Amino acid sequence: MDSDLGGTMKKSTPIFTKMLEYRAQNPVRFHVPGHKGRTSPDLPFYALDLTEITGLDDLHQPSGVIREAQQLAAEVFHAEETFFLVGGSTVGNLALILTVCKPGDEIIIQRNVHKSVINGLILAQAHPIYLPPKIDPLSGLAVGVEIPTVEQILSKHPQAKAVFLSNPNYFGMGEDLRSLADLCKRARIPLLVDEAHGAHFGLSPRLPPSAMQSGACAAVQSTHKMLSSLTMSSMLHVQGGEIDRSKLRTILTMLQSSSPSYPLLASLDLTRKYIAEEGRQALDDAIARSAELVGMIEESGVLWLDVLKQGQYSYLDPLKVTLRSRASAYTGYSLKQFFEHSRVYPELADERHILFVLSLATTTEDITRVCDVLRQLPKHATDMSFNHLNNTFTFAREIILQPHQAFHRTTERLPFESSVGHVAGEMIVPDPPGVALINPGERMDKQIMLYLKELQGMGCQFHGVSDPLLNTIEVIKDL
Amino acid sequence: MDSDLGGTMKKSTPIFTKMLEYRAQNPVRFHVPGHKGRTSPDLPFYALDLTEITGLDDLHQPSGVIREAQQLAAEVFHAEETFFLVGGSTVGNLALILTVCKPGDEIIIQRNVHKSVINGLILAQAHPIYLPPKIDPLSGLAVGVEIPTVEQILSKHPQAKAVFLSNPNYFGMGEDLRSLADLCKRARIPLLVDEAHGAHFGLSPRLPPSAMQSGACAAVQSTHKMLSSLTMSSMLHVQGGEIDRSKLRTILTMLQSSSPSYPLLASLDLTRKYIAEEGRQALDDAIARSAELVGMIEESGVLWLDVLKQGQYSYLDPLKVTLRSRASAYTGYSLKQFFEHSRVYPELADERHILFVLSLATTTEDITRVCDVLRQLPKHATDMSFNHLNNTFTFAREIILQPHQAFHRTTERLPFESSVGHVAGEMIVPDPPGVALINPGERMDKQIMLYLKELQGMGCQFHGVSDPLLNTIEVIKDL
Repeated sequence: MDSDLGGTMKKSTPIFTKMLEYRAQNPVRFHVPGHKGRTSPDLPFYALDLTEITGLDDLHQPSGVIREAQQLAAEVFHAEETFFLVGGSTVGNLALILTVCKPGDEIIIQRNVHKSVINGLILAQAHPIYLPPKIDPLSGLAVGVEIPTVEQILSKHPQAKAVFLSNPNYFGMGEDLRSLADLCKRARIPLLVDEAHGAHFGLSPRLPPSAMQSGACAAVQSTHKMLSSLTMSSMLHVQGGEIDRSKLRTILTMLQSSSPSYPLLASLDLTRKYIAEEGRQALDDAIARSAELVGMIEESGVLWLDVLKQGQYSYLDPLKVTLRSRASAYTGYSLKQFFEHSRVYPELADERHILFVLSLATTTEDITRVCDVLRQLPKHATDMSFNHLNNTFTFAREIILQPHQAFHRTTERLPFESSVGHVAGEMIVPDPPGVALINPGERMDKQIMLYLKELQGMGCQFHGVSDPLLNTIEVIKDL
Repeated sequence: MDSDLGGTMKKSTPIFTKMLEYRAQNPVRFHVPGHKGRTSPDLPFYALDLTEITGLDDLHQPSGVIREAQQLAAEVFHAEETFFLVGGSTVGNLALILTVCKPGDEIIIQRNVHKSVINGLILAQAHPIYLPPKIDPLSGLAVGVEIPTVEQILSKHPQAKAVFLSNPNYFGMGEDLRSLADLCKRARIPLLVDEAHGAHFGLSPRLPPSAMQSGACAAVQSTHKMLSSLTMSSMLHVQGGEIDRSKLRTILTMLQSSSPSYPLLASLDLTRKYIAEEGRQALDDAIARSAELVGMIEESGVLWLDVLKQGQYSYLDPLKVTLRSRASAYTGYSLKQFFEHSRVYPELADERHILFVLSLATTTEDITRVCDVLRQLPKHATDMSFNHLNNTFTFAREIILQPHQAFHRTTERLPFESSVGHVAGEMIVPDPPGVALINPGERMDKQIMLYLKELQGMGCQFHGVSDPLLNTIEVIKDL
């Protein structure tokens, strides 16, 4: 027995202590969850941590309070039927794919979806037909899909079981889904949307319409991200007859805990009530504070920092404020550290951006704290020739095996640099944003290998991989 | 828009209100979770609802506080490696099956496992070889498996990928796993255990040894059930080289939320600390209170009520107290209602039992409240010839399709009474205890049809089925 672990450490609570430490420093939270630790109703933790006992209904067979709460939510979020999720939007995405696809079925999928959608393909043994996203030239970020691309792929794959889009992206860049929904309707193929970052959409005329309002058949929303429920609580909205709801219900029961957390369910219920009563005004106020933040950044005189405003997408969520560095001395990762040093926590960084997520709970004081940090930055930078790594990147990879086929094959470990030409046996996912750059079964090429190493060197974190430092990679053996 | 829903209802919070109502009545909680609403440290809900931000580590790629906390837990729970689960034991069971089985692989499974194990078979497309459980003659309850049965099946299926047991059962009846683990070791096949109801095992010499201590390769424990973490937080323990841990890690990442709940993780951390410091004494105290409860029941003079003590199993968890009715006027379901009327909430009822789950947080006052209710029951009953429905029941069904094959077939809805001879297209699960009596692909016979209808008539709740009232059932079409 390790004596250090056995002694002092056993008396510590690393996670809990860190959480208390975090709270004690009075941080400004520009990250999810949307409630920022503020939305009150005093829900003491343990006293209300209940499970499915008499009177509290049953998430897996709702007929009482949960059914009622879900019906009320469906009304507020413009759905015909709403399912409360305690496994996050992850479980909603997995369930949708398992509902529409049998093993071997084809499904049309936006390439830059969240990794949970690719995991859904593996579990369902479905075959993806990828829709390449546009790459926004200003930011270098992967955004939505173009209508002609969808039209072309739909006509080539009429047997596909669904079109699965991710909208908006992590940075709030999105497409108007109404014409895409019409296109899918004409092709008689259900449109499913991972709307994890758009739980607030459609709740004010100043926000883009939601996927449900736009005519999608199903949408998964991370209520905890942009509204105010507890982390890991989400909603799955459905309308129309295209989705087999009985099968969907069964699959949700298969994937979710048979002891669901009631605080999570209650927080969805409380959020819906708040939105129904005060949502529009509160969102409009939040949008006003966001404009205030943008104004302050632009007046800060930091000449090498831009605020992203418009690019190759239909809209930008006003509650997402993305700063772009033009100075090669400041990567997004280093800027994020700089802000965090002053206890201002952005949601994420990539090579040259940092993202601030605002919500109903963001205050004017939070905005001021950002500007205090901006004042500490140099106004000028010597080298303004920062190039996007992203601009050298495309999602076009040679697909050798379907994701689920690769998943079940024997792999071997190679030095990362020697992987060029080999077929990846694992997913490589910079997280956040959680979009896989390599799926299992895709051939590694030199461009992606170098790009990933460069990201890693800048401080990017990776999910999916067995070696997060990218010194090695699992590739398919005996191909 | 429904005007009632739009008006008063929109301002209510059905789930949250019910939770407050429940707490306000000062209930005696003999159900899970183990902390019974009492274990304090004041964890205010929203202020500490954080997710994976800088310094808080990453559940899907732990290298900081989560890794530390998991290592500390592994030490206390006698594992080599421990994974914290935020999707409940459900996710642990699914992940174990998906880790050991590729599509088409065989796995040896105790027939009376929790439904999540059968759901794991469907997702993995694995083929079960069932181990029939013993039926305890006194209680009529399905308990553990016999060594000769396991030996025989192991020798007939040497290619099976694992043996999967559920131990103890919901009522705390269990087998000594040491000889079963030895048997599996000799056959070079990993032993996996759903130990959802035994998170406290091995933590006092007065308790049975845990699956890890007995030599199992993996065990899933609902820490929230018998110890004191929050509902939906569980642990998966692993030891030895039989399980591909890299694959297990990947699969847990696929199944669990990419925004895991930190309060859940923190509660696992706090529970481990408490157990390491005070667990043994606290458990011994709880066992003493349990003996006190059993004594009081036996002295109550209610002659038609027995306390289950010993039967065809190796041990009975001292923290589970099961009452058995011998009076045909009192089913378990009606007894449960009777107790609940006095705000004493048992964990579950079946046709003739009610189960009280005690834990570290159970007080002497709780025990006294049970006895107050017992005093209101008649001492004598006229008809003491209550027969177990269970005694007419066996798990032996004709298997026509594998669960995953049936899952993907087209079904049709029939009146439940007309289903005899047809092949079930859905799972039928009395819940609790959550053990499937019919799996998809099994042929309905008259005995099981009548048994299920009788259970339903008594007030049993069903999971898995599309019609919880059992008026209809989905059967496979065009067989």
